[in-house]
Amino acid sequence: MYLGIDLGGTNIKIGLLNADLTVQMKLKVPTESETNSQTVMANMIAGIKQLLAETQTDTSQIKAVGIGVPGQMDIKKGLSIFSPNFTHWENVPVVQLIEAQFHLPTYIDNDVRVNLYGEWQLGAGRGKQNVLMVTLGTGLGAAIITDGQMMYGKSNSAGELGHLNMYRHGRPCACGSSGCLGRYVSARGMVKTVQEHLAAGETSVITEWTHNDQAQITAKMVSEAYDQQDQLAQTVMQETGEILGYGLASAINLYNPERIIIGGGMAAAGDRLLTPARAVIAGHALKVAREVCDIVPAQLGAWAGMIGAGVYAKQQI
Amino acid sequence: MYLGIDLGGTNIKIGLLNADLTVQMKLKVPTESETNSQTVMANMIAGIKQLLAETQTDTSQIKAVGIGVPGQMDIKKGLSIFSPNFTHWENVPVVQLIEAQFHLPTYIDNDVRVNLYGEWQLGAGRGKQNVLMVTLGTGLGAAIITDGQMMYGKSNSAGELGHLNMYRHGRPCACGSSGCLGRYVSARGMVKTVQEHLAAGETSVITEWTHNDQAQITAKMVSEAYDQQDQLAQTVMQETGEILGYGLASAINLYNPERIIIGGGMAAAGDRLLTPARAVIAGHALKVAREVCDIVPAQLGAWAGMIGAGVYAKQQI
Repeated sequence: MYLGIDLGGTNIKIGLLNADLTVQMKLKVPTESETNSQTVMANMIAGIKQLLAETQTDTSQIKAVGIGVPGQMDIKKGLSIFSPNFTHWENVPVVQLIEAQFHLPTYIDNDVRVNLYGEWQLGAGRGKQNVLMVTLGTGLGAAIITDGQMMYGKSNSAGELGHLNMYRHGRPCACGSSGCLGRYVSARGMVKTVQEHLAAGETSVITEWTHNDQAQITAKMVSEAYDQQDQLAQTVMQETGEILGYGLASAINLYNPERIIIGGGMAAAGDRLLTPARAVIAGHALKVAREVCDIVPAQLGAWAGMIGAGVYAKQQI
Repeated sequence: MYLGIDLGGTNIKIGLLNADLTVQMKLKVPTESETNSQTVMANMIAGIKQLLAETQTDTSQIKAVGIGVPGQMDIKKGLSIFSPNFTHWENVPVVQLIEAQFHLPTYIDNDVRVNLYGEWQLGAGRGKQNVLMVTLGTGLGAAIITDGQMMYGKSNSAGELGHLNMYRHGRPCACGSSGCLGRYVSARGMVKTVQEHLAAGETSVITEWTHNDQAQITAKMVSEAYDQQDQLAQTVMQETGEILGYGLASAINLYNPERIIIGGGMAAAGDRLLTPARAVIAGHALKVAREVCDIVPAQLGAWAGMIGAGVYAKQQI
């Protein structure tokens, strides 16, 4: 059996996976990412112990632990260097802490990559050798399998499609650059676009829903307003879909994938977002590359990261 | 021994390489790419025969033939589907034609990829596992080694950095899109930028050199005028270098290479072009990725494609 762990900003999802990677049992515990690394790691360890106790599993039955971690990391050293949504989180020796506790071989990797390992083995990427996964959540994450191999690059940061430069002088990004794709095509980015349109004097049913409190606007509301033929929502969705299309057209030209998997919460926008994206791709990606590539939704849902972490653990040993 | 062949738009370069990949003898024959595929292939075959005769080599001493071909191809079938600078050139069975003539295992690949195989084994990419090669010639070509493996993608078109979208509504490109990187950062692109500045009423010493015939302007002249403190040439070089910088910043974020090798004729612009490019990269590529990446000139020179083709042939068998 394997332990698959998805360390998210809100919850830590922990799963006990059978040898065939089916989920025997799973649970989630609050991350408390606003506290500090000691608390978060203690929460993870307590969650693992709880899962083992509830399933009456002894650590001797477990072959390996896989953990998907957001942010920057040293995979070989098992170190989480920096994670944008975690407070007091610096150079956390995640692998060492888990191994010291459970004496099990433990492996970490980037959360999107781990997600893609799951989709590749058990979901929308099965049997494919060239797959780009894009997760549209608070930000935009991506991972890529090329010629049958997960892409890492020199410092494990290959696939940072969220930082593809889309505008020379665009919205500032935390990375230090500006005009990055993820600043437009993400839940946070789309909300920002709505706010810009409102600031320009346009009106939307969304302002009623939020009682004029722009901080309450969510990406989900844009889909809901879109379905009510709200003009501003339709414009914003069109704009966001087109920018996604230009980003994916460049990704198709640079990576030549046979499949693009769209995951993350904002993927629920579905064809509202993908129809304008596909139109741009048809006009801007290389014919030889776009004709071999389809775009499909992720299949593993909210537990994808946890399952993928189990897949990753199995693959590592 | 191996035969390495670089099928260029002007010349076909053919080399006889020893088992250790040193060049025993090389020659070039005119391609006559403006004729048709029969003539070009007959030129290639005649060139091979000449080289074998001059070196008194029997085909039994040769293990394999590698050929670098520009344009779109089916590597497995050994077919050159389309090549932008070749007339009457469609679905040419390059491998079949050479094998029928010499009864030697023959392999084709994209010209830039073959070039990178050469630099990887014998030039600026030695010992590296993550290398991006950019050739700045008439157009912009690229190839990428990631995690120790040459990147192909689903239809062998991974690495088309020349078609990275830089402007939503930019210069039209033969690929059907507009604003592609190669339309700005290439010999042809830089000349076009000079012409645009002249059309806007700016002046340059280049107009004297070309007796006001804008069709005579070359990328090399821009470097020469730059060195004479020509204002227009300095502006154009700065602009072109900055666009290259934005393109390379995105490539660094997407591929995470440890080395970028700049080859091709326009690479002679050197720091005139790379200094502004490096400044943009410093401000726009992810820190974790840019700090592990250097940018160096190609080492194998004008015969790189031929040598690389020999390297590729050896690797294939």
